[in-house]
Amino acid sequence: MSERVDTLVRGTVVNVHTGNLDEDGAVAIDDGEVVALAERPADRELEAAYVAPGLIDAHMHVESSMVTLPRYGAAVVPRGVTSVVTDPHEIANVLGEAGVRAHLADAAHTPLKARFTVPSSVPATDLQDAGAALGPEAVARLLDAEGVVALGEVMNIPGVLAGEESVHAKIRAAKERGLTVDGHLPRVRGDDLQEAARYLETDHESITLEEAREKADAGLRVYLREGSSSRNLADLVGLVDAVDPRRLSLCTDDRDVVDLVAAGGVDHAVRKAIELGVDPVVAVQLATLNTAEAYGLPFGRIAPGAPADLVLLSDLESWSVEHVLVDGELDPTAGAGEPPATEVATDTVAFDPVEPADLAIEAPDPSADTATVRVVDAVGGLQTGRMEAEVPVEGGRLAADLEGDVLPLAVIERHGGDGGIGRGFVHALGLDRGAVASTVAHDAHNLVVAGADHASMARVANHLREAGGGVAAYDPEADELTSLALPVAGLMSDRPLREVRDGFEAVEAAARDLGMAHEGGIMELSFLSLEVIPEYRLTNNGLVDVEAFDFVDVVVG
Amino acid sequence: MSERVDTLVRGTVVNVHTGNLDEDGAVAIDDGEVVALAERPADRELEAAYVAPGLIDAHMHVESSMVTLPRYGAAVVPRGVTSVVTDPHEIANVLGEAGVRAHLADAAHTPLKARFTVPSSVPATDLQDAGAALGPEAVARLLDAEGVVALGEVMNIPGVLAGEESVHAKIRAAKERGLTVDGHLPRVRGDDLQEAARYLETDHESITLEEAREKADAGLRVYLREGSSSRNLADLVGLVDAVDPRRLSLCTDDRDVVDLVAAGGVDHAVRKAIELGVDPVVAVQLATLNTAEAYGLPFGRIAPGAPADLVLLSDLESWSVEHVLVDGELDPTAGAGEPPATEVATDTVAFDPVEPADLAIEAPDPSADTATVRVVDAVGGLQTGRMEAEVPVEGGRLAADLEGDVLPLAVIERHGGDGGIGRGFVHALGLDRGAVASTVAHDAHNLVVAGADHASMARVANHLREAGGGVAAYDPEADELTSLALPVAGLMSDRPLREVRDGFEAVEAAARDLGMAHEGGIMELSFLSLEVIPEYRLTNNGLVDVEAFDFVDVVVG
Repeated sequence: MSERVDTLVRGTVVNVHTGNLDEDGAVAIDDGEVVALAERPADRELEAAYVAPGLIDAHMHVESSMVTLPRYGAAVVPRGVTSVVTDPHEIANVLGEAGVRAHLADAAHTPLKARFTVPSSVPATDLQDAGAALGPEAVARLLDAEGVVALGEVMNIPGVLAGEESVHAKIRAAKERGLTVDGHLPRVRGDDLQEAARYLETDHESITLEEAREKADAGLRVYLREGSSSRNLADLVGLVDAVDPRRLSLCTDDRDVVDLVAAGGVDHAVRKAIELGVDPVVAVQLATLNTAEAYGLPFGRIAPGAPADLVLLSDLESWSVEHVLVDGELDPTAGAGEPPATEVATDTVAFDPVEPADLAIEAPDPSADTATVRVVDAVGGLQTGRMEAEVPVEGGRLAADLEGDVLPLAVIERHGGDGGIGRGFVHALGLDRGAVASTVAHDAHNLVVAGADHASMARVANHLREAGGGVAAYDPEADELTSLALPVAGLMSDRPLREVRDGFEAVEAAARDLGMAHEGGIMELSFLSLEVIPEYRLTNNGLVDVEAFDFVDVVVG
Repeated sequence: MSERVDTLVRGTVVNVHTGNLDEDGAVAIDDGEVVALAERPADRELEAAYVAPGLIDAHMHVESSMVTLPRYGAAVVPRGVTSVVTDPHEIANVLGEAGVRAHLADAAHTPLKARFTVPSSVPATDLQDAGAALGPEAVARLLDAEGVVALGEVMNIPGVLAGEESVHAKIRAAKERGLTVDGHLPRVRGDDLQEAARYLETDHESITLEEAREKADAGLRVYLREGSSSRNLADLVGLVDAVDPRRLSLCTDDRDVVDLVAAGGVDHAVRKAIELGVDPVVAVQLATLNTAEAYGLPFGRIAPGAPADLVLLSDLESWSVEHVLVDGELDPTAGAGEPPATEVATDTVAFDPVEPADLAIEAPDPSADTATVRVVDAVGGLQTGRMEAEVPVEGGRLAADLEGDVLPLAVIERHGGDGGIGRGFVHALGLDRGAVASTVAHDAHNLVVAGADHASMARVANHLREAGGGVAAYDPEADELTSLALPVAGLMSDRPLREVRDGFEAVEAAARDLGMAHEGGIMELSFLSLEVIPEYRLTNNGLVDVEAFDFVDVVVG
């Protein structure tokens, strides 16, 4: 049986099946498969201090990194992340079933083993016009697509609890196919959690240890999230000691391009878990075997018969990667050249050019000096608050109150529908001149624009229209546009990662020059129209009071 | 959400998902499903010190207990065993695909959740005539049958290692269907083990801790067996501490009817594991969640959405069962009445009546006093040895040497083939008069008979022929036949468990009266024709030297 193999890797093997470190181990690989955990004569011999299975990100959205799948793969494979379970929720909102299929096709152009969940909650609501909807039939069709492992995070928890057929049909379709059903259960506790746990199998939204523990006790697989918008690992890590960790996983959910370049994807979460005191082998289990079991994946382990997805490390605790094998291929993204053009559509920003007046609200009393308006209060993070403010009337239209940091905000339908424009106001963005805009605007991904004056707003919106989407800032003093084009669904770029990172940082710097208050203000802008998170959100159809789940007038009284 | 449910069970819940005991817990059940781990108003309230998930036997053969599936269910469900993964290997050897399907149909008549593996190795060899064969096509068809979860223990390890198409076709068929592939790897170590581990996922044949550890290290799921013929738990229990126990399970493999009545099925293994020092929650995991994961079963856990298969215990460490729920039904085998007649065929013993001379070997030299013969040495357990002996010539035929404990042995083809008879000798059975016989005779299950004289042998063989199979002893002094009829495939009875136990014990007592040496000698008899375990075995086609894998003459020279 001691037949010659193509590759032998020697080192201390992280055996996630047994939870042990197998010292002086050897992994024999032939034709992409691990064929023995033993010495074999080999054409190529490699050596490392530690040999671990390639990591799996249990839940994420590639779109959050603003790059296409092949570019994402090029970013994380060298870091030892050889698989992601990605939910193309954003693409689905823009391009529907066809977009999701195109995204799946992109997976052929990266050694990263992308597995997919089918977005379950598209559109988020009927209050806003997204580019597409995925009804139960489309979901069922996509569940049969190659590479699909689950129904994506089910967000319509009221629908789950009320037995709503549209959401339960999707859940049944997944279970009938033997697929996993991912949940999305922020602050769902008590009776509601028990009921939801009958149908949903995973959750990644816990922010406190008590919440996470309650979910684990109810039998859910709990994912500890360490992303960009949400970094929960430090708060949740105690769970690893409190319960058998076999059903815990690590995920990133949303990882922006800056963090991705600086610190990586789920490899960063593994590193941080170890820093926080998790046993290194357990930390690796959290991002390999546990996740593999959650989705029935054949990799995420080193054993005879498994694909040879290996990470060669000089140090385990710091997750210091020297080489990576995917299906036995050494460092497969090194010198791989440019990926082919993405299959995801790049012509998705369809509205007619706007004039400044299109983005403004007529004053209820043109002769008054001010008017009272309802304002989306950007309190920081993804939350918003409700507030009211007096804004000046200028030329018969409601204008910015720069002193009070209350700025005009507009959302332009961009998916080729009626091009309708929602108009309102936002507090605490901090701009004292110019405007910022984004076609990344969860979940419907219309164009969202805010600014100190309507002319700047129109200028930057029209610029992104021409660019096919992206994020941008306009400085009227210098008459300067700074932008990152995101022509792939208006969400992503197919340029190299660092170029996208540089572009994004340039837009952020420009926005800061304009006075933008928060670090990460561009991302904050992109959530101002997400009409499922309290309290006020602006959609292309108008201002939404999320808790009332209905529109309210911007002008008071 | 606090809707009324049909049943509420209060107690300390064994939470196998988290590995914790949830004190003061409550399990709300409605319509057969666990709907909440929380208090609910309920039509029926139950209370117990501990509430555990119903146990799953990871690998067993119902036939070993000599009763049909509904009778087995009636035996173990009250003990908290609510599921078994059974391999109908013996039925398949007698009745092939149709018999396996009939056995699957029997599962409808017991609350026990029987899940099936498709016998992969029928017949054991071509040296003996079994009743049927299961080729790759029949295996593939059976893999699609309802209730099938795996390819049954693959025994043809040389075929696996050599890449033999007939065995690999079966393995591929299982993997293509997403089913598990069970292995059978007694003393397979080193390079052979590494190679086998590429294809086989489980093993239950380890007898030493080192062997079991090597298999676990190679990524196999290791089952710790505590049956009747093989009791390995005490030797292997150290593995629970040596590796992450998530991929270890408990199984019985073969559990005879006497042990089953006295001490139960896999519940006995759980009890013993705890006695041996395994943490009780881990011991329960070994027989619930771990096994559920091995075969993708939805039960084996207590959580919202899981079937309500619960064991109510007055004490966990001693596994003292008070009540059992299966799909929410309380004590479902209590007062269930008689099951319908089995669907497995009951007319399977087809040879023509035999005369004493048919079972005897002609002397090579009728005028000599003795002849030298090769003898199957029943050294104890399932092993046999090779020996030679002088036996007397009487009336031109070779007869017993009672003093030397060398007795005539015969194997009669009983499946409606040519009725061919293999004739030989056995040492160390101990009979000093009469004869014993069995149609349970692994794996081909021909009729095996041994005795002090050929007339007694013919008498007991013809008796079992008329009974449709079974085990029997004949005492010529009293002219008394003692027998247990096993008319279901010649392997099982559809009578109540205790009646079968009493019948079996009566045959054993009668055999002991005849001088049978070993405790369990009837079971030993049933392995004398299993031509895959060293060293000598007698088949209907003659004496086999197992290591040479060929026939040898009984008469020397």
